[in-house]
Amino acid sequence: MKNKSNTDILFGPHSVIEALKANRRDFRTIFISKDIASSERGLTIRELAEERRVPLKEMSSVNLKQKTGSDLHQGVGAEVGPYPAADIHKVLATLHSASFLLIADGIQDPQNLGALLRTALCAGVDAVIIPRNRAAPPTPTVSRTSAGALEHLQLVRATNITDIIKDLKKNNLWIIGTDLSAGTPVFSADLNVPLALIIGSEGKGIRPLVKKNCDLLISIPQRGSLGSLNASAAGAVVMYEVFRQRTPGFE
Amino acid sequence: MKNKSNTDILFGPHSVIEALKANRRDFRTIFISKDIASSERGLTIRELAEERRVPLKEMSSVNLKQKTGSDLHQGVGAEVGPYPAADIHKVLATLHSASFLLIADGIQDPQNLGALLRTALCAGVDAVIIPRNRAAPPTPTVSRTSAGALEHLQLVRATNITDIIKDLKKNNLWIIGTDLSAGTPVFSADLNVPLALIIGSEGKGIRPLVKKNCDLLISIPQRGSLGSLNASAAGAVVMYEVFRQRTPGFE
Repeated sequence: MKNKSNTDILFGPHSVIEALKANRRDFRTIFISKDIASSERGLTIRELAEERRVPLKEMSSVNLKQKTGSDLHQGVGAEVGPYPAADIHKVLATLHSASFLLIADGIQDPQNLGALLRTALCAGVDAVIIPRNRAAPPTPTVSRTSAGALEHLQLVRATNITDIIKDLKKNNLWIIGTDLSAGTPVFSADLNVPLALIIGSEGKGIRPLVKKNCDLLISIPQRGSLGSLNASAAGAVVMYEVFRQRTPGFE
Repeated sequence: MKNKSNTDILFGPHSVIEALKANRRDFRTIFISKDIASSERGLTIRELAEERRVPLKEMSSVNLKQKTGSDLHQGVGAEVGPYPAADIHKVLATLHSASFLLIADGIQDPQNLGALLRTALCAGVDAVIIPRNRAAPPTPTVSRTSAGALEHLQLVRATNITDIIKDLKKNNLWIIGTDLSAGTPVFSADLNVPLALIIGSEGKGIRPLVKKNCDLLISIPQRGSLGSLNASAAGAVVMYEVFRQRTPGFE
């Protein structure tokens, strides 16, 4: 829940703990419900709060629900500064011969975005780029559904994805789009190159103009009559195939 | 929503369309909201309904919400017979040298179960086994979140998973558990054998007694500080690694 332009109210233990660990947000107050205050998780949070000198307030679960605007808080919330989105120029300046970027082109559902970010962090993605418009922004809900991965990731909010793709190409990255219905099977593609992987939106896939700018389109082969993986499962398969091909002993 | 013991109320277009295509449920009535009745999707449903001689009722979106007990119906619902769970003996009788079973050991969240089933169907899983107790049952919500995959899959509801594991072993299947924190990296394991893959519950993983009966434990290597993929992403990575290793040209 965003209640002022420069304040986010994080909720959920993973989101708050990972934000404390990542140490990128300005923490103002941590809220904890009385019933979890002396649990193991409660003690972890108390320790981290003391370390970072953040005031910790105990309150009832009902008040915490009101404070966080959600009943999914699981006993933990925090008032923090806004999400520290990354600057594209900083990301461009740190590209290297094994760069692995993810472009989530218009994921609308915060749960799907959160799931993709969680997998991206685990699969070793260096930075994630999302469009500023017509896509889920990095809200506290996304932080929660990413199990706090959002707090650690470099995430760029781009005004124009096509412009960024051009910059990435100039920096020798391969632009690889996933298109469930067409293209080279992901398992036949050479993914051991510096690359930006594009995952399209849930319903429509990658936008035509973005697709036109891809160097390669890859698909995920599918059995059965359904023919449609969801965006976060498709993302997991493709990101881990990059991981596999790049890891000595697995390729 | 289950409103009688022998009736399910499916909701969501994919769930209803795939159930019609799979032709395994006894269809009583299909409900469609007036606003989508003449859309492309509405016409597909009307055609399938005529083919199967199922009465189709138009109603307002509000009435459809009341009928299906959910506001996630997207204009489509159906009153159908109960889910046709598969018999374990039938599954045992059809095992072969490339069998690929999935055991979801206690997934509690219907959304996670639905996501796993959707990926299972796409990755070529022959049958899925879930425990009858302490796990999400195959409800209309699971049908919807699986995008209808539930309607096509062989799904067994097992009273005792450990007994079934013993039967599978007698039939020369490898029992392979995923344990995020330990075991052989999935990409180093030989998965080109007849196997049953076990995915544990969201919080606790595979139960100790089930784990003890595994022939092999595999893990998914992870970067970053989080160290935890969600159950459906982990399932997607492991199921598609089985797919990859078994497909000529991808291995």
